[in-house]
Amino acid sequence: MLKTYFPILDWGRRYDRQAFGSDLIAALIVTIMLIPQSLAYALLAGLPPEVGLYASILPLIAYAIFGTSSALAVGPVAVVSLMTAAAVGRLAAEGTADYASAAIVLALLSGGMLALMGLFRLGFIANFLSHPVISGFITASGLIIATSQIGGLLGIKADGHALPDLVTSILSNLGHINLYTLAIGALSLGLLLWIRLDLKNWLDRFGVAKGVAKIVVRAGPVFVIALTMTLSVVFDLGGKGVALVGDVPQGLPILAIPGISLDMIEALALPALIISIVGFVESISVAQTLAAKRRERIEPNQELIALGASNLAAGIGGGYPVTGGFARSVVNFDAGAATPAAGAFTAIGIAGATLLLTPFLAVLPKATLSATIVIAVLTLVDFGMLKRAWAYSRADFAAVAATIAGTLLLGVEVGILLGVGTSILVFLYRSSKPHAAIVGKVPGTEHYRNVKRHAVETVPGVLSIRVDESLYFANARYLEDLIYNQVASNPEVTDVVLMCSAINAVDMSALESLEAIRVQLGDMGVRLHLSEVKGPVMDRLVGTEFLEHLSGRVYLSQHQAMQALVAEPSRQHEPA
Amino acid sequence: MLKTYFPILDWGRRYDRQAFGSDLIAALIVTIMLIPQSLAYALLAGLPPEVGLYASILPLIAYAIFGTSSALAVGPVAVVSLMTAAAVGRLAAEGTADYASAAIVLALLSGGMLALMGLFRLGFIANFLSHPVISGFITASGLIIATSQIGGLLGIKADGHALPDLVTSILSNLGHINLYTLAIGALSLGLLLWIRLDLKNWLDRFGVAKGVAKIVVRAGPVFVIALTMTLSVVFDLGGKGVALVGDVPQGLPILAIPGISLDMIEALALPALIISIVGFVESISVAQTLAAKRRERIEPNQELIALGASNLAAGIGGGYPVTGGFARSVVNFDAGAATPAAGAFTAIGIAGATLLLTPFLAVLPKATLSATIVIAVLTLVDFGMLKRAWAYSRADFAAVAATIAGTLLLGVEVGILLGVGTSILVFLYRSSKPHAAIVGKVPGTEHYRNVKRHAVETVPGVLSIRVDESLYFANARYLEDLIYNQVASNPEVTDVVLMCSAINAVDMSALESLEAIRVQLGDMGVRLHLSEVKGPVMDRLVGTEFLEHLSGRVYLSQHQAMQALVAEPSRQHEPA
Repeated sequence: MLKTYFPILDWGRRYDRQAFGSDLIAALIVTIMLIPQSLAYALLAGLPPEVGLYASILPLIAYAIFGTSSALAVGPVAVVSLMTAAAVGRLAAEGTADYASAAIVLALLSGGMLALMGLFRLGFIANFLSHPVISGFITASGLIIATSQIGGLLGIKADGHALPDLVTSILSNLGHINLYTLAIGALSLGLLLWIRLDLKNWLDRFGVAKGVAKIVVRAGPVFVIALTMTLSVVFDLGGKGVALVGDVPQGLPILAIPGISLDMIEALALPALIISIVGFVESISVAQTLAAKRRERIEPNQELIALGASNLAAGIGGGYPVTGGFARSVVNFDAGAATPAAGAFTAIGIAGATLLLTPFLAVLPKATLSATIVIAVLTLVDFGMLKRAWAYSRADFAAVAATIAGTLLLGVEVGILLGVGTSILVFLYRSSKPHAAIVGKVPGTEHYRNVKRHAVETVPGVLSIRVDESLYFANARYLEDLIYNQVASNPEVTDVVLMCSAINAVDMSALESLEAIRVQLGDMGVRLHLSEVKGPVMDRLVGTEFLEHLSGRVYLSQHQAMQALVAEPSRQHEPA
Repeated sequence: MLKTYFPILDWGRRYDRQAFGSDLIAALIVTIMLIPQSLAYALLAGLPPEVGLYASILPLIAYAIFGTSSALAVGPVAVVSLMTAAAVGRLAAEGTADYASAAIVLALLSGGMLALMGLFRLGFIANFLSHPVISGFITASGLIIATSQIGGLLGIKADGHALPDLVTSILSNLGHINLYTLAIGALSLGLLLWIRLDLKNWLDRFGVAKGVAKIVVRAGPVFVIALTMTLSVVFDLGGKGVALVGDVPQGLPILAIPGISLDMIEALALPALIISIVGFVESISVAQTLAAKRRERIEPNQELIALGASNLAAGIGGGYPVTGGFARSVVNFDAGAATPAAGAFTAIGIAGATLLLTPFLAVLPKATLSATIVIAVLTLVDFGMLKRAWAYSRADFAAVAATIAGTLLLGVEVGILLGVGTSILVFLYRSSKPHAAIVGKVPGTEHYRNVKRHAVETVPGVLSIRVDESLYFANARYLEDLIYNQVASNPEVTDVVLMCSAINAVDMSALESLEAIRVQLGDMGVRLHLSEVKGPVMDRLVGTEFLEHLSGRVYLSQHQAMQALVAEPSRQHEPA
């Protein structure tokens, strides 16, 4: 029982020297990768860079205690940082103490919601964020994030959390480009791109061992930061108008909870919920993908608790909302992380870096962080999803398109709600107009299929209809019309067999419609039979007026129904 | 084509003397019934009583031109009157000119919406208002309406459109009861009850002919109104503090459209939409019930246009939102109305009554109208629905209970939205956790059923799973878990057959899950087969990576799949 909620009690007991070694190496590599990302994502969230480091300490320890994935690396991620900026930006101005407090409150709220969802086993809520919607959302967010960093790279302002505002802001400030900033931005961008795309081949050619080359590539962004900091000091870039990070509090964060007002909670509740669900879905997909490769199981509800604890820890430790990141988790996995302890070691690494680094951060050009962000998020953008969705189904395409358009034009929260809303509406609309088929017997079998698709045998006077949908309020009237029209246009029909193999539920509205159909058919002198009614549906129908007054019978299979009807004396003299 | 939008061109051509006679008699009886109801419902809507008469003239003529039901009688109804009061009451104080204008705008908006829904064939939207929700809504509305009239019967104020406000208001004013009002109210209530329950038997006993007795009973409320008007004059009840209707404009309404502001449209748009849908659902169910008795067809989208035209006419003619009423339509039907012309004749009757009646209305005690309302709405209250829903399914019960509680406590609009929301959420929740069954062969047939419910034959090493739900985003992950767990707990399984007879659609999220299942089973050395995939589903799967790399085969029927697998050489030496 205790092990369910504290997985550390389980793997901790089996922890050995080998796992320790693997975890330590993985932690080292992830630490190197996390430092520039943490600084950059905090900037993206509109927060001082050190907050990114703070958000990469306590949350990792919390996840190590509660998490079920051996490879997941939590911390600040791009999409959640953007969502934080959008949510908090409505309450306070960037750079104020209120802004930082609101970000902390957002983390606490999101942590509380995730933990509650986990305790009450409400993980299924996340299922309503479909693959196409989350994929479209991430693409659109990546695009917004990349656009927002154009400002940082050019040394101009770029305000807004949706494309129209951002583009307007950038265009109207184009006259104020700082050439030194542009130079640092271009240099950083170029170096980072080269590191990502080419450094490994280059090291290979120089005969550097694969393992070392890998670590050098991961550490590349740290070198870029060190280089631009040096350039900043040597050329006094701050004096030439290049935006620098500036003085930051030194040392580790003080554990504290800011004053929380009810107004603030009300304003941040919906964003916190959306951030929680988006963060959870992103995190759980990474965790499950990696777990499948090692035949491990991820417990979704416990993951909710773990992410909740991580966010509560982020709030207490002066950070902002965190979740499991894709890139860093893959790196953690590749580097051989054996248990969640790797995350705890990473936390220690980041804490050390925070102590060492904060005194020097003042001279870091912000353009370098912007370049780091752009390189990181461009991998998120995948417009191919639109094409794939279009090819597969218009319904999925509608959901992706609504999400992308909504997010780009109206912002992250509206975008995701629009996507979820569209996918639910499309689903409801489709199930409100179900597919139905007249069926006949596939020759030589006891199997019944659509007369339009298969060469099948039918019996004159017997109309077999298979309705391909559960019967519920949204399609109950449709069913009434369907059967009425079919029977009215076939005057020779004496028996209708409703083949229920695809009817998974019948709600009360549909029961009333079935009752109406029974009465209507009765008035027309046509009998109504059912076949292949599933157990759970039959359990409900038993005892209802509909079943008790059914003019026909309920048959186990469609074949038995047809055999019985063909054998009836009245049908013997008819041509078969 | 023209006949589709103007059904009058169809039945008008065949109109003859006999239909004219029937329609005229029906119109006479409905007119007698409509007069007191129109006055009373206008009062319930917070409007002067003559507005109820106005709303019973032009709308009936509009319906006669556009409607497809020969029996439907449109006009003011109780539930829509309550909803009008709730919507308009937020914008203006009762009794002001703004209040009356807002009611007219509400009718115009609702008329426009209904007509557009009809033209764009959006009638299916109404399907989302399920039977249990509409039934719970009407019950709760009836209760609120009856409670609101206690004030009128006691001569005290009763403010509010939901139960808590109403009860508080009544209790705090109990000290101001006017005994004369109470006497008139009690007399009216008693007489109306007696007329409804006993007058017919009484007339029977005195040997009055059935037809005449029926008309006398219908005319009963008019006599009560005449009686209390007489009492009002004789005893000078106005001078004794009894609330009277007071002076009303004489003659027919002037056709006009009030000044409409954008603010007003914005404030009334949602209420107008809800009123439109509730009104349409109430109206169409009455129309269809009556049409079925005569083997007539109702065209739902044309009914939307007809109701839209009626409401536009109500707005232009100084009325307020109208719809097809249950009681009066039944009376119209019973009285033999043969065509929609009966409605037009009723309109002429009401217009005549308006001219004759308005001069005398001033002395009518409002308590009489309150009594009329109470008697009319008590038939709407049906708490039995709660019990029936509970017995049938918890899901339906949740929807009814949410509707009733929401309507009583929070008002009509919140109540109905809560009901619709609950029924959709419950439907989504259920389909997110689908029923699934391991199936085996029913001996002596080619039919496969749940191993837990039927004595069936299975083949060792082959796991046949039937999933009873379309696969879509909300249950995609659930399916992954289900199959993974089933296979992981049965190490001897070599083949999984997914029986798709109940899978009516596969969306992109589910396709990705199927793909994940394929890969997972592949890693475990287990083949995945499909059987009984429906045409529309197969159309989508063709060409996808999932189908192209499927390790097993797609079989037409479950039986063919099992025959093929049993015949495989590797299985020949196993015990069958």
